[in-house]
Amino acid sequence: MNAALAKLYQSIAPRLAAVEQEIAETLACPQPEIASLLEVSGRYGGKRMRPALVLLVASELGCVDARHERLAAVTELIHLATLVHDDVIDEADMRRNVSTVNAAHGNYEAVLLGDIIFARAIHLLAKLGDRRSLLVLTRAVSTLCEGEILQNRHRRDPDLSEATYYSVIGGKTAELYAAGAGLAAHVAGANEGVVEAFSLFGEKLGLAFQIIDDCLDVTGDEREVGKSLGTDLRNGKMTLPVILFRESGAAAERALVRKVFSDAVDPAAAGSLRELLVEKGFIRAAARVAAAHVEEGLEALRRAVGRPLPAMEAIGQYVLERSL
Amino acid sequence: MNAALAKLYQSIAPRLAAVEQEIAETLACPQPEIASLLEVSGRYGGKRMRPALVLLVASELGCVDARHERLAAVTELIHLATLVHDDVIDEADMRRNVSTVNAAHGNYEAVLLGDIIFARAIHLLAKLGDRRSLLVLTRAVSTLCEGEILQNRHRRDPDLSEATYYSVIGGKTAELYAAGAGLAAHVAGANEGVVEAFSLFGEKLGLAFQIIDDCLDVTGDEREVGKSLGTDLRNGKMTLPVILFRESGAAAERALVRKVFSDAVDPAAAGSLRELLVEKGFIRAAARVAAAHVEEGLEALRRAVGRPLPAMEAIGQYVLERSL
Repeated sequence: MNAALAKLYQSIAPRLAAVEQEIAETLACPQPEIASLLEVSGRYGGKRMRPALVLLVASELGCVDARHERLAAVTELIHLATLVHDDVIDEADMRRNVSTVNAAHGNYEAVLLGDIIFARAIHLLAKLGDRRSLLVLTRAVSTLCEGEILQNRHRRDPDLSEATYYSVIGGKTAELYAAGAGLAAHVAGANEGVVEAFSLFGEKLGLAFQIIDDCLDVTGDEREVGKSLGTDLRNGKMTLPVILFRESGAAAERALVRKVFSDAVDPAAAGSLRELLVEKGFIRAAARVAAAHVEEGLEALRRAVGRPLPAMEAIGQYVLERSL
Repeated sequence: MNAALAKLYQSIAPRLAAVEQEIAETLACPQPEIASLLEVSGRYGGKRMRPALVLLVASELGCVDARHERLAAVTELIHLATLVHDDVIDEADMRRNVSTVNAAHGNYEAVLLGDIIFARAIHLLAKLGDRRSLLVLTRAVSTLCEGEILQNRHRRDPDLSEATYYSVIGGKTAELYAAGAGLAAHVAGANEGVVEAFSLFGEKLGLAFQIIDDCLDVTGDEREVGKSLGTDLRNGKMTLPVILFRESGAAAERALVRKVFSDAVDPAAAGSLRELLVEKGFIRAAARVAAAHVEEGLEALRRAVGRPLPAMEAIGQYVLERSL
């Protein structure tokens, strides 16, 4: 964990440790065949942004308890299940410097393992006994997968609209952030207006997170990003900087985007596009859009709660500034 | 639907129609990209054994209502989600004479579609608002997948023990039957002893169903079974008739099983084994084991309820007699 993240998580460190414990217990299994598989996914690690968001929302409202730890663990377990399935889908070999489950044990077991993690996550959620959490999070999982299907349908589509782009990232990333933040407020006993404001903040934070991911794919540090740069372009995945570039100009810009997104991979064209995105300021422009999303979420929160929310400002700032 | 099944389902036909409606509504989607995918899985059809069991248990207890229809729909949706994922795992092209989702739309979308169906099933279950149903069914999904992993680990294992065989089929098949039958009694307001007896009956019925499947793979009618015969042997999947054969004799029997289960496929050895299983009575012996499971389940029910249970006897008889 880097210094910025450690600072952000300082106030909730003991709670996060309890979440880790709950995740480990949920993934425990007496059968050695299954236990070794579940351990692989446990090693995926990651930033734990989703559980941290749940805990920070609850502590911002002055009312964080063991139920939030459980809710936080569930959001991370759901995320973990989707990662295991994403790796099958992408035929990925490595994630965060660990062999993926599909690479180590085959697609057969990776598909089933994702299902097991998801089922156990919802089992844990059922123990929490909060009807709204169950309804919102199961809906979120469906929406998340629908966003990924939409993304797949538009792979290598150079004309993907900004509206469809937002449907994709709204589903695959922002929905789970929105669910986590809104439910954290709900479980803390907040009124409906406050719950909805936190849900909107979560959504905006998730959108910003994904847009910054788009930018890091072009300008990031490979070791920190954890994958080789330019992956999105190579895979024909449309990103906000590319949309802004495409919409900024005339025929030449459109033609270059078309070339990069065509089936025949052209590394030279992709290289030119990446250079132009940086030099002409489209990475910075996309980052400004991300910042506007965060500000919009914070503004809604301030209106609903009627006071500044330092922990939410801090997590927003972290999302915008990470390694950019 | 064949005549035997139509007769079995006669008393619950209107309820089953309502279940079909609930399944269709759960799989509905305004986005055309997703809707077309969800329709494919809807066409998988099948015998609807799991929802029928839920409804028959409830009517046997004289207390079937809309909540049972919902519970029944959830069990079938969970089954449907596992079928979609099984087809990815088995790289199957056809199921029940329809192209599989993975064959028509690729593994990417088939993995996500299974996740969507599962998430929507649990969302529907959350609406039912019964904590025990949520806990039992999410646990059942995890156990089901664990059974499939265990089966995969022992593929082509000629020495698979009868105990491990039962762990596999207990997980992958019997668990969902047990959950459905037990929860149907629970939702009908039965006392704990009766709920447990129905759960045990469901488990035994599921074991019998799977053992009869084992037998049908050797002696069935290809059109009715819906797949080519001998698939289990070709795939190195251990079945009860083969275990009984192996345990019946001396070195020769063991050697033949070893040969059939070795990596190099030997159609002649598999053919000999299939003939011996029929001629020497091992198919009939396995069917008798299935019948004993059903009888054990019925006996537990009669003890708990204190009277004959004609609908449970009928479903037991159907499972044992289908196309054998």
